[in-house]
Amino acid sequence: QILERVQAFFNNTTSIHENGHSIQATGVLHGRSVVITAGPTREAIDPVRYLSNYSSGKMGFALAAAAVKAGASVTLVAGPCQLATPAHVTRVDVVSALDMQQAVSEHIAHCDIFIGCAAVADFRPVQVAQQKMKKQQDHDHMAIELVKNPDILAWVATQSPTPFTVGFAAETNEVAKYARDKLERKGIQLIVANDVSDATIGFNSDNNAVTVYWPEGEKAFATSTKESLAENLVTLIAEHYKNFKKQ
Amino acid sequence: QILERVQAFFNNTTSIHENGHSIQATGVLHGRSVVITAGPTREAIDPVRYLSNYSSGKMGFALAAAAVKAGASVTLVAGPCQLATPAHVTRVDVVSALDMQQAVSEHIAHCDIFIGCAAVADFRPVQVAQQKMKKQQDHDHMAIELVKNPDILAWVATQSPTPFTVGFAAETNEVAKYARDKLERKGIQLIVANDVSDATIGFNSDNNAVTVYWPEGEKAFATSTKESLAENLVTLIAEHYKNFKKQ
Repeated sequence: QILERVQAFFNNTTSIHENGHSIQATGVLHGRSVVITAGPTREAIDPVRYLSNYSSGKMGFALAAAAVKAGASVTLVAGPCQLATPAHVTRVDVVSALDMQQAVSEHIAHCDIFIGCAAVADFRPVQVAQQKMKKQQDHDHMAIELVKNPDILAWVATQSPTPFTVGFAAETNEVAKYARDKLERKGIQLIVANDVSDATIGFNSDNNAVTVYWPEGEKAFATSTKESLAENLVTLIAEHYKNFKKQ
Repeated sequence: QILERVQAFFNNTTSIHENGHSIQATGVLHGRSVVITAGPTREAIDPVRYLSNYSSGKMGFALAAAAVKAGASVTLVAGPCQLATPAHVTRVDVVSALDMQQAVSEHIAHCDIFIGCAAVADFRPVQVAQQKMKKQQDHDHMAIELVKNPDILAWVATQSPTPFTVGFAAETNEVAKYARDKLERKGIQLIVANDVSDATIGFNSDNNAVTVYWPEGEKAFATSTKESLAENLVTLIAEHYKNFKKQ
């Protein structure tokens, strides 16, 4: 931890000098520690096959860059995605939901804000075959038995002290209904909802349009680049964080 | 088809001039048409989730480049992978095994050599949900019902005229046994087997080591870069192709 603080100090110092001005010292998240998850998770079926989803990680990586720009110390827990690590971000690569939960638990203790942007697989195969499963010549059908993964977002929201917790909801229908339900059920502070049935925004697009919900209100953001949207989301998160009492 | 031939002619002419010498006019596959499949396939579960495998596509893309260098006209049918298309290769991007079969069927008619390097998913979900499947709060388990995908390699080997057909076998155990079984069962000319349980070679590595089997013999290739191995494999394929009678 001492090492981490020393590194964080020098990272901050370095970037202030690099930028030639002190964005970080005056940023809306100056001095705050933020943990962000991003990308998909992969759930192994056997040594060659897996279950996953279309999350590209772009939104989470853009949020990490925006949080650094706002002065935060950022840890990015990333599922498998082919993206460059934003400057001054501490990146922890993981594969499965269980890996991601482990990495989050190791970094959550001193974190002020947690943003769960990863598309964590809801289920994983009950058994991971140690050898590649062979097709049976006489079987045209098979089934993969799945068991529910831990809910990382809900778990973070039950920790004490609880960080300010932001979730994401990628939905294809009844977006507002599912998002408000998720906000309440998980006991988190903000939820960012997007409609992934629209291919021009969402998973693999460079653009996104979202609506953010909280218990007393909501705010819609029109389609923009994920970088621009990330900066607006960080500003909104910082505004709500100011009135948040750690419990 | 006329358009394709004209394009192929100009592609060939261009590369001869570009290289400043006539590799292609004297290459071991000069004038031959080669179709190569590469990468994984993705089998949709619902609008956000899919089944896939760890194939990176590197080996198939290296084979496409090596076949061009040997003078062939090359069509590369590629599953989802983030690789640049080698020069002078006609690339057809696909997602699922059914897409891949469709693309192969459209390009196989006048092809002399077919190399099935893709890691085609053996099974796909029986039903693709039109909306994102929701977790049921009271269900900790679920199952995905799967149905067998078409066997593209075996299908190609039953076409008339039959191209010289090369398969790949990615195995984690009893590699030689499964490879020889696959060679015979599918009625193909060569099979290239590698042991993907060794992380230093295989799926996402830049290196590979394989053993090639044919009915009367076999040849082992020690670990080398996929580019170097691809050139050796193309040479071996061209030697065997010389004695192949189209049926």
